[in-house]
Amino acid sequence: MVQKVTPWEVRGNINYDKLIKEFGVDKIDDSLLERIKRHTGELHFMLRRRIFFAGRDLNWLLDEYEKGNKFFLYTGRSPSGKIHLGHVMPWIFTKWLQDKFKTELWFQFPDEEKFLFKQELSFEEVQNYLHDNMLDVIALGFDPKRTHFLIDTKHAGLMYKEACKVAKKINFSMVKSTFGFTNQTNIGSIFYTSMQAVPAFLPSVLKGKNIPCLIPHAIDQDPHFRLTRDILPKLGYYKPASIQCLFLPPLSGVNGKMSSSKGEEQAIYMTDTPEVVEMKIKKYAFSGGRATLREHREKGGNPDIDVSYQYLRMFFEPNDKKLEEIRQSYLSGELLTGELKSILIDKINRFLKKHQLERKRAEDKVDKFIFK
Amino acid sequence: MVQKVTPWEVRGNINYDKLIKEFGVDKIDDSLLERIKRHTGELHFMLRRRIFFAGRDLNWLLDEYEKGNKFFLYTGRSPSGKIHLGHVMPWIFTKWLQDKFKTELWFQFPDEEKFLFKQELSFEEVQNYLHDNMLDVIALGFDPKRTHFLIDTKHAGLMYKEACKVAKKINFSMVKSTFGFTNQTNIGSIFYTSMQAVPAFLPSVLKGKNIPCLIPHAIDQDPHFRLTRDILPKLGYYKPASIQCLFLPPLSGVNGKMSSSKGEEQAIYMTDTPEVVEMKIKKYAFSGGRATLREHREKGGNPDIDVSYQYLRMFFEPNDKKLEEIRQSYLSGELLTGELKSILIDKINRFLKKHQLERKRAEDKVDKFIFK
Repeated sequence: MVQKVTPWEVRGNINYDKLIKEFGVDKIDDSLLERIKRHTGELHFMLRRRIFFAGRDLNWLLDEYEKGNKFFLYTGRSPSGKIHLGHVMPWIFTKWLQDKFKTELWFQFPDEEKFLFKQELSFEEVQNYLHDNMLDVIALGFDPKRTHFLIDTKHAGLMYKEACKVAKKINFSMVKSTFGFTNQTNIGSIFYTSMQAVPAFLPSVLKGKNIPCLIPHAIDQDPHFRLTRDILPKLGYYKPASIQCLFLPPLSGVNGKMSSSKGEEQAIYMTDTPEVVEMKIKKYAFSGGRATLREHREKGGNPDIDVSYQYLRMFFEPNDKKLEEIRQSYLSGELLTGELKSILIDKINRFLKKHQLERKRAEDKVDKFIFK
Repeated sequence: MVQKVTPWEVRGNINYDKLIKEFGVDKIDDSLLERIKRHTGELHFMLRRRIFFAGRDLNWLLDEYEKGNKFFLYTGRSPSGKIHLGHVMPWIFTKWLQDKFKTELWFQFPDEEKFLFKQELSFEEVQNYLHDNMLDVIALGFDPKRTHFLIDTKHAGLMYKEACKVAKKINFSMVKSTFGFTNQTNIGSIFYTSMQAVPAFLPSVLKGKNIPCLIPHAIDQDPHFRLTRDILPKLGYYKPASIQCLFLPPLSGVNGKMSSSKGEEQAIYMTDTPEVVEMKIKKYAFSGGRATLREHREKGGNPDIDVSYQYLRMFFEPNDKKLEEIRQSYLSGELLTGELKSILIDKINRFLKKHQLERKRAEDKVDKFIFK
């Protein structure tokens, strides 16, 4: 299947090296990691393992930081369904950045985007998901004093004006080539990227000075920010820097991106019960194990194509030593698929138990997070 | 010169009968005027003289009105320069409608439109004109209790969401053919018509019931509302009705539209001093008089091509009998161009004296008019 990566569709076997070339982003190298570590004291496992593997202008961002020109973080979530592990992965890293660098975080909820791009989705459905999704973000433990939710339709009084300044610099040809739009694309979708650009400079507008911006995001959103980076200097703002992660794969296999559109059973949702998690992993998580016990014991499993192992590597086992032990044990045939899955199920359920508790508590906190 | 009428450009000799056909609007006929008169008691001279000459769904609007389903009025002003007589003409009629039908009036100031459509215009310049233009609207005497100003960037918190619902139903092909956009048109301009659609149904959204809407406007805005009329029923709202007027001509001749872009001397501004008005009319108002006094006395003047006479007919002499006396006197050669101009100068200056006084008083009223 031919690789296709746009903000609205990820298809085919993802070749990340090809993406790096195609998008023109920089691979994260050891010297950059060293430099980050000088400020953070340690490296998040998602950096060590290159789950966050690419970026733009990260050295510039650190230059500015070292000069005392602190950055803010910008990320977001376009509500259109329930939150699953694939959404949460980059936010966990974003929280780490917020904690380590003590930065402001602007979290955008573009509650018009999926309404505009999905024919069958109503505005009211999106509003329900918006509330639901905010709970999951809050539950992750972001600092309410330094985290500001921007909801496009609610904050349009602040944002639309700024979006128009961006929009004036982008013509139809540009969005056509960037996003593959056609003459049948609706005019709301055509305009939308201007709204996604706004949080990258809104803090600069509000503070009346130019503040560097860092956007942690999954690499499929890069086309938006490529456009944003072209435009912002024309408005007198810095190009936003970005740090980009791999997609957490769906249960069905290590290629592609966990997504609700692949069917509810292909994703693990933040509200899934322990039983559902167990069932999904046991039933659907693609295994790198062998067909028979004997063959597995003889030849060993293949962690590279094993979804359960990949979830441990990308999300649930931060300890490198433990992860390596699991890998070796699986490779050797000692660890069976069922045992590997049990390790993962236990990790996920412990994570979700805490999350679901925090999620209940989040109901009372929503108002504190919405930008005033 | 070939006729061209778009919301952003009016060019060539305007053939209104051709426009009626091209746009597919209905000419206002005697039976409609009789019907209006039954409710208003009298007919505004702009109706009697067919300055408001066309419309859409006006009989439907009166059907609804007679059933007790009262309409609201919607008109607007896109700030990009000073207000001149050409802008004010339809607003005077709008005020008459408000007074006679005791209706709400939603007055839109799309303060992003000209910023998006005019390359050289800055957002800050538009904001200055916005304030200035509001003063002129208020000075005309609209009822502050029933008049609500909507400023697109200020009220985007209310409007953007609704605009997205419209935008989802309009694709690039549609705005391309309606407005003549190209691939070089910026994406803010492409989206804009959705914002112009919003006041036609926002009162229905706010009141939670479907309310008929009547839009008094100069006919060049019809393409926007044609699109709006296509979309609104798909969202469950009535098509807005409209009543459309001729363009007040520039000083240079009875064809075309008074416009600042033709040069400051081709328009009479609401802030012009009596001396400037006198100078402009004497120097620039195209005359239908003859080359010499003797020829004029012999053959008479031509009021049809005389800008001063047309201003009296369209704006400054509501009394039909007096207007006809002037016409006959001019036709006969008795009334000279200079005398005709003096009558007009006197009328304009009396109008502007009162307006400028009210304009000063308007400074304190702006806040009352802005929708809360």
